[in-house]
Order: sequence, then C-alpha cells, then structure tokens
Amino acid sequence: MTKQTGTVFRPKALIFDVFGTVVDWRNGIAAECARVFAEKNISADPHEFADLWRGEYQPAMQKVRSGNRGYVSLDMLHLENLAAVLAKTGLDTHFSDDERADLNHAWEKLPPWPDSVAGLSAIKQHAIIAPCSNGSIALITRMAKFGGLPWDAILGADIAQNYKPEAIVYRRNAEVLGLEPGEVMMVAAHNDDLHAARAAGLRTAFVTRPDEHGPGQTTDLEATGDWEIVAADFGELAAQIAQLPQD
Amino acid sequence: MTKQTGTVFRPKALIFDVFGTVVDWRNGIAAECARVFAEKNISADPHEFADLWRGEYQPAMQKVRSGNRGYVSLDMLHLENLAAVLAKTGLDTHFSDDERADLNHAWEKLPPWPDSVAGLSAIKQHAIIAPCSNGSIALITRMAKFGGLPWDAILGADIAQNYKPEAIVYRRNAEVLGLEPGEVMMVAAHNDDLHAARAAGLRTAFVTRPDEHGPGQTTDLEATGDWEIVAADFGELAAQIAQLPQD
Repeated sequence: MTKQTGTVFRPKALIFDVFGTVVDWRNGIAAECARVFAEKNISADPHEFADLWRGEYQPAMQKVRSGNRGYVSLDMLHLENLAAVLAKTGLDTHFSDDERADLNHAWEKLPPWPDSVAGLSAIKQHAIIAPCSNGSIALITRMAKFGGLPWDAILGADIAQNYKPEAIVYRRNAEVLGLEPGEVMMVAAHNDDLHAARAAGLRTAFVTRPDEHGPGQTTDLEATGDWEIVAADFGELAAQIAQLPQD
Repeated sequence: MTKQTGTVFRPKALIFDVFGTVVDWRNGIAAECARVFAEKNISADPHEFADLWRGEYQPAMQKVRSGNRGYVSLDMLHLENLAAVLAKTGLDTHFSDDERADLNHAWEKLPPWPDSVAGLSAIKQHAIIAPCSNGSIALITRMAKFGGLPWDAILGADIAQNYKPEAIVYRRNAEVLGLEPGEVMMVAAHNDDLHAARAAGLRTAFVTRPDEHGPGQTTDLEATGDWEIVAADFGELAAQIAQLPQD
C-alpha cells in the first residue's frame, strides 16, 4: 500500500466497522423497541431507549479490555446492558427473561445504509471483504443474512477474544486472512477506530455517516486524520478502491 | 432436532467438511501441479503427486492433535508437506522457496463439485451455512472466492485452534454461531468425520463423493452410520433439508 514512493496500492482485504458504518443501528433498534413497546402499551420513546442501550456499550466492553473481566461475546453484554436500561427506565417488570432475550436479537436485524450492499458487492470484486466489528460471529452472521451483506468471511472481536480499539483485534483479523497489517484497510465512520487501526499497522478509510446518531449528531462529521481514503458513502469508497493500482 | 418423538427438525446451521465434500481437491491439485510441471519439463504424474501431498495431511495434523506441537494453520502444514513430497520424489532442487509458496496456493483454487454451489445456495435459504474444515480461514476464504461458494461465515480449525476430529472443533464451531451442538448438522463425505461430530453432539449428513480419490476409490462409498441424512449430492441434501419441519 503506501510505499516509499507514496503510492497507495489496493489493499488485499478491507475490514469494516459495522454498527454505524455498515448498518443503521439507531433506527433499527428503535424500530424493534417501538414494535415491542406498542404490544405492551409502553409509552417510552424508542429512539431515546436505543440511545440509552447503546450508551452502555463502551463501559461494558471496557471491563474486558482492561482485563477486569474475561472475554464474553457482545450478545451477553447487550443482554446485560438491556437489563440495566430497563431498570433505569423503570420498565424491568414489563419484560420476562425470554422477552429480554427476544428483544436482544434486535441487534441482528439492523438495516444496512442504502449504499452498503451495492458498495460492498462492488468492492468484493477487487478484494476480500469482512466485518471487523465488536459484534460476535453469531450476531454479525445473522445480521448479514437479514440485510443481504455479501461478506467473504466473518471476523471481528470473537477472532481476537478482545474488543476494539485494542490493537490485537486489528492485527489478529489481518493474521487469520494470511495478510500483513499493511495489506489490510480498515473502513469506519469513526475516527477513533481508524486511529487505532493505523497504530496497529493497517491502512484506513473513513466513510461519513452523519445520521448515525440522529438529527443532532455532532461527532465524526468529518475526517480528523489523513486517512488513505475519505468517502461520502460506500459507492464512493468502491470507486476509489477500484482506481488504486494493484501491488 | 431428533426429539423423543423421533422427529428430525431442521438444523439452525449446517457446517461442512470441505476437501472432498465440497471441492474436488485431487483434480484441483493435480491440475495446478500439471501446469507447473509442464513449465519445468518435469515428467512426474500430477495425480500421483496430489495423492502423495494429501497423504502427508493426517500425520501432520496428528502432531497438533496429540499436543506434540502447538496449533499452526494448515497452510503451514501444507507447505511443510510439499517440501517432504518434493524430497521424496527427488524434485526438491526444481523448486525455489517462492515457487513452493506459489504452488501451495493450489489449495485455494480447488474446483467445487458440479452440484456444490447450487446446493449450498438452496440450503442457505433455510439455515446458516459455514465450512467446518481443517483448512484455515485464509485458505477457505480464498477458495470460496475462487469457486463462488456462498458461505454465510468461515469457521473451521482456526476457530478452535485445533484439528478435526477433535471434539472441540465441532463444539466451538457451534458455540461461535450461538448454537447448541444439537442445533447444528455436520455434512461430510467421510464417515469418520460424522462419527466424531455425532460424538460431539451434532446432527449428521452424509453425502457420497465416490470420485474423491479417483477411479479406484474404496473408502466412504456408502454410509457406515445411521446418519440423520444420507444424500447422493448437494441437490438431494438441499431437498431433504427443505422438507424437515422447523423446530
């Protein structure tokens, strides 16, 4: 990829952040919550609930990253986080254990952004494409079937038994593809993910997703690093990848 | 799946042996060897060479399974086995290290059996499909791109850091899909693979591949266990899966 000449070569594989970058988690979770809340005559705002649920995401993973807890899959963390949010919002008596487990599958039913499937299909003609998500293989595999995401392989946190942005996750994902970190490009809508991927030796592509957090989004509206690629959507990303010379 | 009533339910996932079951390794390896031998004016029989190379497969993995060697991917074992066979056949002076590494990629270019892609595509409508091969994620991902195999995820030995028929491989492959062993069906053209999968708690399907070892094949010509499904090819397997009731 970047050589002494400064030429950026086409990566052998692109690995992708998923929540927010490939799929619209906020509207997806809110839609499932709205459906269940309606059945139960609960008046809580489903988008607010989605934000609260996702708000527990980083603190829960931090316990694993810091070594205070052994690796458990994100499905388990999501279920624990759901319990915490149901308690906070005073809704915990409304949901049985089975109903919580059912609602937890909402994370497998997230809609791709409108350009994701076509963009991934185009990129797949030129390189290996795989998710490098903190979501488990179980979760991301089902999400791919739900949304028609044409991954070549399902990688991510399970492969490394640790969570991004720990360097081992990026490096181990490259390693199981038989590639050096510098032959792999990390794609994300989050600058911090790309800073960590670059520090681990990967190439980087930023795709803007200005609606991930809804109408009031203030973060990641633009690239804050000199990423090898910056694109407005996956169509633009695919076009830029196609134009890179092969190593 | 098999319940007290004896009803066999549709598995939530089917995981597949690959070499011999999904792809024709013998003719694939022989074709690549024939190409390279012709370039080098080597008169060795390419099918015989393929059989010798594959012959080193089980002994090499046995060192890992027995604990005498830490887990290394099959790509590394294939490369070591190639060196052993080149030495045995007196061809080792003909191949540089780079040429050996190139020839080792032959394992990524194996042709699917004629019914594999259509059968997998049909089964994919009903359940998760993934390889459970001793081949690495790197190898099996590239083989899927080469042959158009529509896997939902790439599992196998790398996931368990051990080799079939160790029980942990079947169990860990089910576990990363978020499934109990009994919700998963192992598909193979080899009875010993299915005996081990059943002992690990999985359901089993046998598909006959009477040409895997060429015209003189004497093994695995028929089922030697009462597998839940026995099929002549992947089309028949898909039809039988479609007819099973959902749990």
